[in-house]
Amino acid sequence: MAKLTFEFPDGSQRAFETPVTVVQIAQSIAVSLGKKALAGKLDEQLVDLEQPLEQGGHLQIITDQDPEALQILRATGAQLLATAVKKQFSEIKLGQLAVDEDGFYVDTDKADRQISVDELATITKKMQQMIKQNAVIERHWLSQEDALAEIGSDQYQRALLEARQQTKFLFYKINGVLTLAQTVIAPSLKALKHFKLLSVAGAYWQGKSSNPMLQRVYGTAFYQEADLQADLQQRQEAHERDHRVIGNNLDLFFVDPKVGAGLPYWMPNGATIRRTIERYITDKEVANGYQHVYTPVLANLDLYKQSGHWDHYREDMFPPMTMDDDEQLELRPMNCPSHIQIYNHHIRSYRELPLRIAELGMMHRYEKSGALSGLQRVREMTLNDGHTFVAPEQIQDEFKRILNLMVDVYHDFDIDNYTFRLSYRDPQNTEKYFDDDEMWNKAQAMLKGAMDDLGLEYVEAEGEAAFYGPKLDVQTKTALGNEETLSTIQLDFMLPERFDLKYVGEDGQEHRPVMIHRGLVSTMERFTAYLIEIYKGAFPTWLAPKQIQIIPVSEEKHGDYAHHLNEQFTALKLRSSVDQRGEKMGYLIRDAQTHKIPYTIVVGDDEKQQQTVSVRKYGEDDSRSLSVADFEKEILQDIATYSRNE
Amino acid sequence: MAKLTFEFPDGSQRAFETPVTVVQIAQSIAVSLGKKALAGKLDEQLVDLEQPLEQGGHLQIITDQDPEALQILRATGAQLLATAVKKQFSEIKLGQLAVDEDGFYVDTDKADRQISVDELATITKKMQQMIKQNAVIERHWLSQEDALAEIGSDQYQRALLEARQQTKFLFYKINGVLTLAQTVIAPSLKALKHFKLLSVAGAYWQGKSSNPMLQRVYGTAFYQEADLQADLQQRQEAHERDHRVIGNNLDLFFVDPKVGAGLPYWMPNGATIRRTIERYITDKEVANGYQHVYTPVLANLDLYKQSGHWDHYREDMFPPMTMDDDEQLELRPMNCPSHIQIYNHHIRSYRELPLRIAELGMMHRYEKSGALSGLQRVREMTLNDGHTFVAPEQIQDEFKRILNLMVDVYHDFDIDNYTFRLSYRDPQNTEKYFDDDEMWNKAQAMLKGAMDDLGLEYVEAEGEAAFYGPKLDVQTKTALGNEETLSTIQLDFMLPERFDLKYVGEDGQEHRPVMIHRGLVSTMERFTAYLIEIYKGAFPTWLAPKQIQIIPVSEEKHGDYAHHLNEQFTALKLRSSVDQRGEKMGYLIRDAQTHKIPYTIVVGDDEKQQQTVSVRKYGEDDSRSLSVADFEKEILQDIATYSRNE
Repeated sequence: MAKLTFEFPDGSQRAFETPVTVVQIAQSIAVSLGKKALAGKLDEQLVDLEQPLEQGGHLQIITDQDPEALQILRATGAQLLATAVKKQFSEIKLGQLAVDEDGFYVDTDKADRQISVDELATITKKMQQMIKQNAVIERHWLSQEDALAEIGSDQYQRALLEARQQTKFLFYKINGVLTLAQTVIAPSLKALKHFKLLSVAGAYWQGKSSNPMLQRVYGTAFYQEADLQADLQQRQEAHERDHRVIGNNLDLFFVDPKVGAGLPYWMPNGATIRRTIERYITDKEVANGYQHVYTPVLANLDLYKQSGHWDHYREDMFPPMTMDDDEQLELRPMNCPSHIQIYNHHIRSYRELPLRIAELGMMHRYEKSGALSGLQRVREMTLNDGHTFVAPEQIQDEFKRILNLMVDVYHDFDIDNYTFRLSYRDPQNTEKYFDDDEMWNKAQAMLKGAMDDLGLEYVEAEGEAAFYGPKLDVQTKTALGNEETLSTIQLDFMLPERFDLKYVGEDGQEHRPVMIHRGLVSTMERFTAYLIEIYKGAFPTWLAPKQIQIIPVSEEKHGDYAHHLNEQFTALKLRSSVDQRGEKMGYLIRDAQTHKIPYTIVVGDDEKQQQTVSVRKYGEDDSRSLSVADFEKEILQDIATYSRNE
Repeated sequence: MAKLTFEFPDGSQRAFETPVTVVQIAQSIAVSLGKKALAGKLDEQLVDLEQPLEQGGHLQIITDQDPEALQILRATGAQLLATAVKKQFSEIKLGQLAVDEDGFYVDTDKADRQISVDELATITKKMQQMIKQNAVIERHWLSQEDALAEIGSDQYQRALLEARQQTKFLFYKINGVLTLAQTVIAPSLKALKHFKLLSVAGAYWQGKSSNPMLQRVYGTAFYQEADLQADLQQRQEAHERDHRVIGNNLDLFFVDPKVGAGLPYWMPNGATIRRTIERYITDKEVANGYQHVYTPVLANLDLYKQSGHWDHYREDMFPPMTMDDDEQLELRPMNCPSHIQIYNHHIRSYRELPLRIAELGMMHRYEKSGALSGLQRVREMTLNDGHTFVAPEQIQDEFKRILNLMVDVYHDFDIDNYTFRLSYRDPQNTEKYFDDDEMWNKAQAMLKGAMDDLGLEYVEAEGEAAFYGPKLDVQTKTALGNEETLSTIQLDFMLPERFDLKYVGEDGQEHRPVMIHRGLVSTMERFTAYLIEIYKGAFPTWLAPKQIQIIPVSEEKHGDYAHHLNEQFTALKLRSSVDQRGEKMGYLIRDAQTHKIPYTIVVGDDEKQQQTVSVRKYGEDDSRSLSVADFEKEILQDIATYSRNE
């Protein structure tokens, strides 16, 4: 019999004769340790407590004091869920069982129909019963032949099994249900008291959209009830603010992976918000000296070879399309080269600088499908993009000007929780950066000086600049607490070189301009997602898809007045409509609130006689009676001030 | 010696012993015919008069009475141009010589520099001298070896020669210059009296953008001076209205084939016009009950397989991109399937119909490179697209509504030269069409009835409907007299079937809607090109990229007043600027007229003192003195009424 040697975290070593398991080793160290042991960690790999070990190594005995304990608890939850599902639906097939940082899940395929979310209660009960009974978890090691016989016609389990290079396969058996082990679980069910099944959603087998769609049942588990409750509450809040949930409830947009993952369709409500943002930002930029352009989303691949995107950014780009004459056309990943085309279309004079080019520029990036999320991470996006071309000595003034514009825009959208971060090159490692020491030093000093002049607070991050120049990022926290870059101002010394940009100076000589990339509100997609979350779907009046809902007390008696008002409001370019469904008043008012419409107007006998409106603002409990003129004045003022109530 | 038999247009046949030429045959028929003969046409192929014929066939003797005579005259012009160019620049290389329906051209490569348009006068003189001398055109038949020796290092001539399966090669020699024959020319120069060299432009060797760019010298020729003069005048007019010329002069847009043929870049001036049109048409549609959306330009290819575009329209589509999991993504050739996605995202009720979905929808079509032209024919375009989904009984009302909207829009753009054409299915051949007789008959009657109700004149075109439904086209003539479809309303019975569109009727049952495709102003690209031509670049104030140019008599003395006015106008969202170049007054005023700016304002001592402006409208000779308030009132009224001066 062979001897295996194990080294423990305290540095001690012990040798054991095979066969030996983690629980036996733990017991040999201390009986109490054997009782507390949940699993082993052998050379950084979790192993089941009763797994016969075949080689020695660094071994750690995992107990509920270790960080891995939560993962093991949740894996046990997944295993028990799988068991309960199989008990509930005898013919069901199981896909992947897994643990992630939020909880656990089990993929299922019930051929005849989908599991409904209502059935989670029944499944939960089954799980609770087994926990209460402290049902034994038996470990069985089957030969491949036996394992395949056990799995039968379940093609998913078969695929999982066949992918492994093993001769013996571990199965867990709970309450008579035998299931192929996919994760390392606890020795017993006793710790699994505080769990919750959360939801059911579609998930492709092995994550590939060409594979069958399985149903993924999600759950989570904690060691303490308080932790579970806190997690559920946070989930509830996240759910309420989740732009995908609100986007669906308010009919703002949808994504259909069958038609194209990461390619959102903006429904009329969402499109109205987007159009309002687009016009706002375009007008703001034009008023601030930007010249808006339209440039094509396609270009010859050579353009992106010259810009360097093809060399450094290829994995995020769509594949080139090969056309006649072997021309390769590419969906642009960024708009900078397009704006350089605009700059280079004329010989430029110092008198034209700073030259500010802006566009609502559509771009395409092939994000990994796992990273896609609603409007937040997409594959086709329209960026509020702008590039200003400046003489080197104009960097500071232009930077200030952009900053002021940015702060002005934030103010209009009522965004105030942001911080500034200046990114410099690494002073210890300057050869990693674009080679112009003087330019870097001057430019970094200019940015810093500008922030100081404007009295803005900022953090400085050495070594975080891009290769081609220093930058300022504006960081914000999303409603869910995730840090996100809202805007950026990025100096670029490199593209002017690569495209040989020039301007004729006052001295009559050719000079090289510096390029400043800047985005005020990022992409329409991401910004809208962000706004949905910060407003919780209750858009300020100027952005709201519908601004006024008019409800006649009786369609028959007051419908004419309601429609008259509606026409009058529409002529003022207000987004108004009459609710003609004829449901009960209370229901219609609640419904307008559910849809977060800023102004709900009820008109009955009094209003019709006195030519007034009874107005209820979103979020207010009471309604007010106003003359039509006063109401119009109020809502127009509301819109003109971007609903900031100042 | 072999005998060749020829059959003539009158049916007679004659046999000749080889070697024989066309001119010999003509002389054998009649001496006068031999003198008048320009070339032969043997089995529909033009052959040189002195070409030794190697086989018989149908032979026509071409004289100046035949339609081919003009082509031969122009080919002679091209040959003489090539000769003159070689005399002028001994080292020059020649590419293609050709005749097209507008005239002739010769491609040249002068390695050291480009031929300037000014040099055309010198070349013309050389040509005229040779014509005056009636320089003899010698025919030389060289062996391949001799021909290659003659051509020397000219790689283009060499490529042309090597592409031919011949043993003897015809060269024309005029005034000692020997040139490879590429077209059949006249026996002498005597008819070539009325010609004109027109222009020089870049053209890729063999039309491939990966090949070197040659210089193409264009010319034309006629038998009569009057015809030449009429042609030149028409060219001048076409040139003045050509949207590419105006687009360049007014800096509206450009296309760079190196970056992408058919992919225009809209410069700030052109972008302002486009943005104004886009906002106008969107607002108009929203006010008329359309719901605007944004949908992605990319979709899974399956969508276009289901719609039928991939089967029937593939040659105009871009190639699919193959992504992860073998997903194929396609740039959409049309927006209809996208709007169907919007429709199908919800269960629809009869209460929602007509449901009107609209979008400024970007599409991609791979037009042949020869068909591309400025903004008129492009590969990436944004369509003013809309689809309304109606119950079958609503077709007529909705059709009227669209028509009224269309006429309203034309009125705002001051378009009045259009005609209506109703296209029906072919009543003799109904099986060619979507299979629902009753639907066709009803729908056609509805469209006709609507036109009659509205009192609109129209022509009816049987057999011109699409497979999937009848339609109305609005035809207009461009400034150059070409007929163009400005708008279309197209009924579609097929896509609702293919995508299984439904609505729940008042009866609670599912019904199939009819889809109406409609475009009011076609694509932004084509419509802008059209407007440039009808306005000759003098855009009405509401569309003009710059509306007001303010010229201070002295920047020093009146600059402050000029800038004060400029700020005041800009605050009213007028597009105004101050001309600060400090050039002479007359020059600046002329320059504002050249740029077709609607209002030029001059401010000097009087204006500053009295707070007035001296206003000159584009196209008017005199200026008027107005108070600032009156001027603002005038221009705002001008814009509000779409400059229709009513």
